[in-house]
Amino acid sequence: MRLVVVGAAGRMGRMLIKTVAETEGCRLVGAIEREGSHALGQDAGVLAGLSPLGVSVTADPLPVFAKADGVLDFTSPAASVSFAGLAAQARIVHVIGTTGLQDDDFTRLEAAARHARIIQSGNMSMGVNLLAGLVRKVAATLGEDFDIEILEMHHRMKVDAPSGTALLLGEAAAEGRKISLKEHSVRSRDGHTGARNAGDIGFATLRGGSVVGDHSVIFAGTGERLELSHRAEDRSIFARGAVKAALWGFDKKPGLYTMADVLGLNDL
Amino acid sequence: MRLVVVGAAGRMGRMLIKTVAETEGCRLVGAIEREGSHALGQDAGVLAGLSPLGVSVTADPLPVFAKADGVLDFTSPAASVSFAGLAAQARIVHVIGTTGLQDDDFTRLEAAARHARIIQSGNMSMGVNLLAGLVRKVAATLGEDFDIEILEMHHRMKVDAPSGTALLLGEAAAEGRKISLKEHSVRSRDGHTGARNAGDIGFATLRGGSVVGDHSVIFAGTGERLELSHRAEDRSIFARGAVKAALWGFDKKPGLYTMADVLGLNDL
Amino acid sequence: MRLVVVGAAGRMGRMLIKTVAETEGCRLVGAIEREGSHALGQDAGVLAGLSPLGVSVTADPLPVFAKADGVLDFTSPAASVSFAGLAAQARIVHVIGTTGLQDDDFTRLEAAARHARIIQSGNMSMGVNLLAGLVRKVAATLGEDFDIEILEMHHRMKVDAPSGTALLLGEAAAEGRKISLKEHSVRSRDGHTGARNAGDIGFATLRGGSVVGDHSVIFAGTGERLELSHRAEDRSIFARGAVKAALWGFDKKPGLYTMADVLGLNDL
Amino acid sequence: MRLVVVGAAGRMGRMLIKTVAETEGCRLVGAIEREGSHALGQDAGVLAGLSPLGVSVTADPLPVFAKADGVLDFTSPAASVSFAGLAAQARIVHVIGTTGLQDDDFTRLEAAARHARIIQSGNMSMGVNLLAGLVRKVAATLGEDFDIEILEMHHRMKVDAPSGTALLLGEAAAEGRKISLKEHSVRSRDGHTGARNAGDIGFATLRGGSVVGDHSVIFAGTGERLELSHRAEDRSIFARGAVKAALWGFDKKPGLYTMADVLGLNDL
Repeated sequence: MRLVVVGAAGRMGRMLIKTVAETEGCRLVGAIEREGSHALGQDAGVLAGLSPLGVSVTADPLPVFAKADGVLDFTSPAASVSFAGLAAQARIVHVIGTTGLQDDDFTRLEAAARHARIIQSGNMSMGVNLLAGLVRKVAATLGEDFDIEILEMHHRMKVDAPSGTALLLGEAAAEGRKISLKEHSVRSRDGHTGARNAGDIGFATLRGGSVVGDHSVIFAGTGERLELSHRAEDRSIFARGAVKAALWGFDKKPGLYTMADVLGLNDL
Repeated sequence: MRLVVVGAAGRMGRMLIKTVAETEGCRLVGAIEREGSHALGQDAGVLAGLSPLGVSVTADPLPVFAKADGVLDFTSPAASVSFAGLAAQARIVHVIGTTGLQDDDFTRLEAAARHARIIQSGNMSMGVNLLAGLVRKVAATLGEDFDIEILEMHHRMKVDAPSGTALLLGEAAAEGRKISLKEHSVRSRDGHTGARNAGDIGFATLRGGSVVGDHSVIFAGTGERLELSHRAEDRSIFARGAVKAALWGFDKKPGLYTMADVLGLNDL
Repeated sequence: MRLVVVGAAGRMGRMLIKTVAETEGCRLVGAIEREGSHALGQDAGVLAGLSPLGVSVTADPLPVFAKADGVLDFTSPAASVSFAGLAAQARIVHVIGTTGLQDDDFTRLEAAARHARIIQSGNMSMGVNLLAGLVRKVAATLGEDFDIEILEMHHRMKVDAPSGTALLLGEAAAEGRKISLKEHSVRSRDGHTGARNAGDIGFATLRGGSVVGDHSVIFAGTGERLELSHRAEDRSIFARGAVKAALWGFDKKPGLYTMADVLGLNDL
Repeated sequence: MRLVVVGAAGRMGRMLIKTVAETEGCRLVGAIEREGSHALGQDAGVLAGLSPLGVSVTADPLPVFAKADGVLDFTSPAASVSFAGLAAQARIVHVIGTTGLQDDDFTRLEAAARHARIIQSGNMSMGVNLLAGLVRKVAATLGEDFDIEILEMHHRMKVDAPSGTALLLGEAAAEGRKISLKEHSVRSRDGHTGARNAGDIGFATLRGGSVVGDHSVIFAGTGERLELSHRAEDRSIFARGAVKAALWGFDKKPGLYTMADVLGLNDL
């Protein structure tokens, strides 16, 4: 499968280049950066700390998309929406790992998905998406006599809490229980809190060191606890998930897909 | 639901009596011990550390089963097989938490299940049975690039390793992968082991203190780990699972069921 | 050693009676409850779910203390201060596991400790006190490039956060670093928090199920984490710690001691 | 401090070069590889994925050691013993992270340590060495009623079990208890093991994925557990520990030191 990486000089871009180069069945055919980037003209392989791959970084996506089967994109909402339009024109696969997309952006992605095969997720790792599916199923199976708590730990530089992935897991739990997360979430506890309300979904946040991202969902009943945890060791898992998604999308019909589709978890 | 506890004077028997007394929708109508037991004639409630329940411990199950809707049984394989025959005659529910059942015993339980509603499991806790279902699903979803390891910890008095529940979780993983556990299990590691074989299912055992039972199943991929864990805080969860199973069985057709049926996990 | 349990009919009182009865080298010689308690006149052993011990519950502590070597006390601040005065008169050991003591109360305990051997701690378990000593030492050894985070989980009925023991661990960390906990503690995180400040001590709280008490102190550096955890399986550990403290105090001089003295951790 | 890296082209060698380049107060002045290595003549910085540092890889250590203050060495036992002799001649610091050293090798290191300042450890990370000190202290404090279990997890390519670090932690526990590890270690459990013997030190091993190295030491008593854990996120911690050791050794007298000396843990 012939793949293009956009945002090629960024941290995720370089990791995507490396992952494409290392994955059987894939070949890098393009690397895009915005006008003015110092990386323009450089070899994409060298940029990623590899031997040269014979692919130069360029600023114009259209001719590159035209000869590709898919594009990997962890950029910004505005850029991703624009790339989706081009992917639709080229009728190729567009994998979007960009975070912070708003409702507006999704409306545009849906339009592009009439011709492109778009796969979008806030967390591209196999493990987290599988975890979300499990959490939904367990929350639907166990009643309110099991209390749901979500714990996450990230590195000291992270500026928001809880993490987007923790909220994604909270949404999965709320869906399983058929309740609104917003109405049942307890995002912090301090001082005299009173006893826990049945049906609450609690969050707790740890920050420190260089932790890439740990998440646990705890179902605490009387006399027993079930705990489902994911531990990310390095950021390469997000790149590998994106490449896996692209390979999956190769022979699919146009549409807007999620990692749950890629992993076959929709029946969970 | 009118319930009988057999093996009433044992540790699990007394816990079952207590749980029946405390569960809405249930009533204790009989408590059976073997001939010669010092508990014969005692009040079952007092035996369980409660106020008197007006039910005396007796040695003859038949008249007691005749006026009951179900029987709770954590005894021995021979006794459970015999009780199953009586439960079939009485056409009632028979919940079996007895461990160590052999193929022969299952053949007899199947025969009895033509008339009785038998629910049998090596671990009656909600959490462990749900965990087994999740492990089967995850093992089927993730390929061999995720290594499966099973860790358990129990108190210092436990005499065998790995625990029956760890093996049950290993079986679930092997089923998910459509392989034979026996051919792929690595039950200990010491010295020069060589690198791990893809497809192995590894076990590790900890013993110490008063731990009731902790189990973890780890799916370790490149750069990420998914860990599914269960922690039993006290043995009452097994009694509560048994009562839940009996209530579930009340309106079912005769047959041999498992906790996966009770929990609705068979489609997992 | 001849021991008295005060607050004999409460949950901790009954556990203390049971623990004294089961510990070699100890003997129960008195059980005190307040005037009007339904337990007055009952046998203390029966109260604790044991066979009769030949010791009746009474309301007047003075004659009982006079023939005892020590008293075990998990009551209320006012009661504990009053018992300390009587223990001083009788020149015996007074083990205080009462929580919520204020500065005033400590002033009175110090006065009583001129004649009594008083051992006081907010958490009587061996493990938690040892953990606090380790945390102090590690915090003193590792610099600010290791971030300190404290996580605790308790049952759904607990009404305050963080737990007293989590705060005790935070104090130990702050002492090790020679900083004020109050000035450096971050007791919850929600929304846009900004990056973590070096030197912060963070707290996170989980609530659910029937968890007796789990505490973890995490030292998160760049590329590595050290985590020190304690898990309480049942409340009997607090009773055993109290009895151990009483035995330790038998041959000591009058004074106000802590569990760190009992465990020989002051040089840690 | 002027530092030399030996085994410069290996995985640890390149990481050491990078770490020296990034640490304030250090400067790389030499990089050694064995005769015939393809890396000879290359710039050490480029080898480590950095900009050129102006230091070429050479094969002759003697002239390089002569103008250095210290050498960082994660090579093989034979090479390390030989480098120690040269470090003694040059009267510099020699940090040895090489594993698999035998009694013979230590005899030679002791001889070299009459003139060199040698710092040797089987694990150079801050966290693991601190953990070993804590384990020794806890094992000395808690009696045999707390069972000691050691758990480790490493990546799927690791060929031996338990890990050298797990054994180092076992030795620390045995020292604390003043027993012989060899006589009390239980290195695997499978089948009918019987109950745990008081005083045993148990090991359990997990293998899978890309785990750099997790170690836990569990002290399991009746009703409570203390667990001390270390988690290595990436191998850079070993390089940072080695550089820290070199800086510490700069102004010390000749001798054979360990990381416990570097960290000031000998009084623990």
